[in-house]
Amino acid sequence: MVSESEPMENAAFKNRLKTLRLKMKQARIGVLLIPAQADVAYTTGFLGEDSWAVVSTGGVYLLTDGRYAEQAAGQCAGCRIICRKEALPEAAGRLLNRLARSRAAVEDSVSCADYQRLRRCVKAALRTVRPVVEGLRAVKTAAEIATIRSAVRLGCDSLSAAVASIRHGMSESELAAVLEYEIRGRGAVTSFETIVAFGSNASSPHHKSGTRKLRKNDFILIDFGVKYKGYCSDLTRCFIVGKPSSAAYYRKVYGTVEQARRAAVAAVRPNVAAAEIDAAARAVFHACKLPSYDHGTGHGLGLKVHEKPVISATSKETLREGMIFTIEPAVYMPGRLGIRIEDDILVTPSGARVLSGRCRREPLLAWPAPGRT
Amino acid sequence: MVSESEPMENAAFKNRLKTLRLKMKQARIGVLLIPAQADVAYTTGFLGEDSWAVVSTGGVYLLTDGRYAEQAAGQCAGCRIICRKEALPEAAGRLLNRLARSRAAVEDSVSCADYQRLRRCVKAALRTVRPVVEGLRAVKTAAEIATIRSAVRLGCDSLSAAVASIRHGMSESELAAVLEYEIRGRGAVTSFETIVAFGSNASSPHHKSGTRKLRKNDFILIDFGVKYKGYCSDLTRCFIVGKPSSAAYYRKVYGTVEQARRAAVAAVRPNVAAAEIDAAARAVFHACKLPSYDHGTGHGLGLKVHEKPVISATSKETLREGMIFTIEPAVYMPGRLGIRIEDDILVTPSGARVLSGRCRREPLLAWPAPGRT
Repeated sequence: MVSESEPMENAAFKNRLKTLRLKMKQARIGVLLIPAQADVAYTTGFLGEDSWAVVSTGGVYLLTDGRYAEQAAGQCAGCRIICRKEALPEAAGRLLNRLARSRAAVEDSVSCADYQRLRRCVKAALRTVRPVVEGLRAVKTAAEIATIRSAVRLGCDSLSAAVASIRHGMSESELAAVLEYEIRGRGAVTSFETIVAFGSNASSPHHKSGTRKLRKNDFILIDFGVKYKGYCSDLTRCFIVGKPSSAAYYRKVYGTVEQARRAAVAAVRPNVAAAEIDAAARAVFHACKLPSYDHGTGHGLGLKVHEKPVISATSKETLREGMIFTIEPAVYMPGRLGIRIEDDILVTPSGARVLSGRCRREPLLAWPAPGRT
Repeated sequence: MVSESEPMENAAFKNRLKTLRLKMKQARIGVLLIPAQADVAYTTGFLGEDSWAVVSTGGVYLLTDGRYAEQAAGQCAGCRIICRKEALPEAAGRLLNRLARSRAAVEDSVSCADYQRLRRCVKAALRTVRPVVEGLRAVKTAAEIATIRSAVRLGCDSLSAAVASIRHGMSESELAAVLEYEIRGRGAVTSFETIVAFGSNASSPHHKSGTRKLRKNDFILIDFGVKYKGYCSDLTRCFIVGKPSSAAYYRKVYGTVEQARRAAVAAVRPNVAAAEIDAAARAVFHACKLPSYDHGTGHGLGLKVHEKPVISATSKETLREGMIFTIEPAVYMPGRLGIRIEDDILVTPSGARVLSGRCRREPLLAWPAPGRT
């Protein structure tokens, strides 16, 4: 497995910068300061932390520090690396003063504290602008799609291995530990803290896995993500273990969630409003008189596990070919059950490809399986 | 092992709020909006994400969303939970309008984008203020110290178990996987992505663990942290495996790093400048004519793995009883070696207690050990 420290391909890097500089020109920005880590990664190839990027018409600069010097040298082929000794705002201010006296801007994801410090350092005017890079990241290139596919595949393989190790009496934490071990063993890391919820714990969408032990007849929800070469996957699967007394009702609700998922996927194609995808899923719940979930139907995936596009009722975004996002309808009944099915979707020229299509989907887990106790 | 979802003890919660309200009064703040996650956790007990806190003279409010409703109900005994349907700035603006028409403030860790949205929603004046809560968090209460001690102990136990599993031919990722598995199995999670570096990879302070395999005669650096009930530990240990040809030189440098660590710990006591601790460690390197490390000597530990106090040459902070921070002097020689020893330190009335004192410190690992191949 390749480690995370390969330099970004040069062609992809140049194309991104070309598009970014075009956007900068349109917005009359001469020098752009980029503080958000995923945007820094996108413009420089750098996958570390505590660093900012600066893009001018003539160059790309990474402001990092000594801890990341070797990593930056390996990852950022196309940009000038500045190992700062001072804090980020002061180092950035010094660079901006050197590069330009006018039309300097900083993306407004910067904190007010850092912006105020920047203002004290920068001699010319400095304005805040809506994030420019974040929008570019929403549509993925072929290389990015391939990397996310790898992240999804590694996730599916890790899940299969973890499911095979499920045992009666295992705690939520233990199952999360096994799954994360499988991810790490495949040369990837988790993209967020793995959620394993047994029984009615699954009704809390962001449940913290704890000591609850798996019973002989039980329910499991697993929500987990993989980060591979900087790119994220995010998947949720639910299982019925053995023959719980409420299995029939659970299966019925599960069927509705699955139907909502299919309806949402079927609605995906370029130029459709993201809000329509959300509506397609919720219509199924409405028709079945089941309570709808209190979160969006999905979110973009890329260098961050939550990015654009937002798939929700209030989203103003329109789907475009090359976008990748989750679809994750759910039913939550506190004290009773929680069912969520989450897949990773690519917008193709004609519709959708479910990148996690081969990921284990059958909710029934035989218990006890032959040869295991 | 107790899960992360216990409500914060009421007495500790009330004391914090009393101190916070005193600070607010001194700064002429009537209502304070707190956007940073660790500060939200500190004031409300809530350990989830995507949520803000608001503290007024009369109440504490958690602005969260449906995904966290159950978790918030379990963790935030003393505050009013508002499950927002709109974005955070709009929900916060609505609440601020309800609570006060004057003297409202937001901590300047808020992003410029969110601040501008807030300004559009809030009818009265809204000013940004330097973080108030962050400063309070630097000195730990007895309960917080006990929790961090648990996090340190769980880390030490996990490390012992992982070290016992070290095998010839194991990759960096595999050893990181084992260590993280041990942490999860003890009911905790990692506080950051575990760094396992073999051989000269250790010269990159934030090395990404990859496919490099452990040789029969080799060097290992492990830097890892545990998060338990929301609180973090952070430890680094180095090992010599077998008898590498450069073992004698490595041991000599290791001895100097250890001497620097001891010198720094010996300098810790209340009312000493944090910069003095940094100077004490660097003086040892200077005397031995070894290159000094390009990062601070330490950082505070608590709800975040990097918080106040900063232990560096430029730090303006003064140590106070109850502060907890790392001490982590190091030597980096790119292409050759990297050695860092990191402990977690509590400032006591008379000096320092090394919370990780019992954590395995002997750098020699016999190889191959009896009974293992």
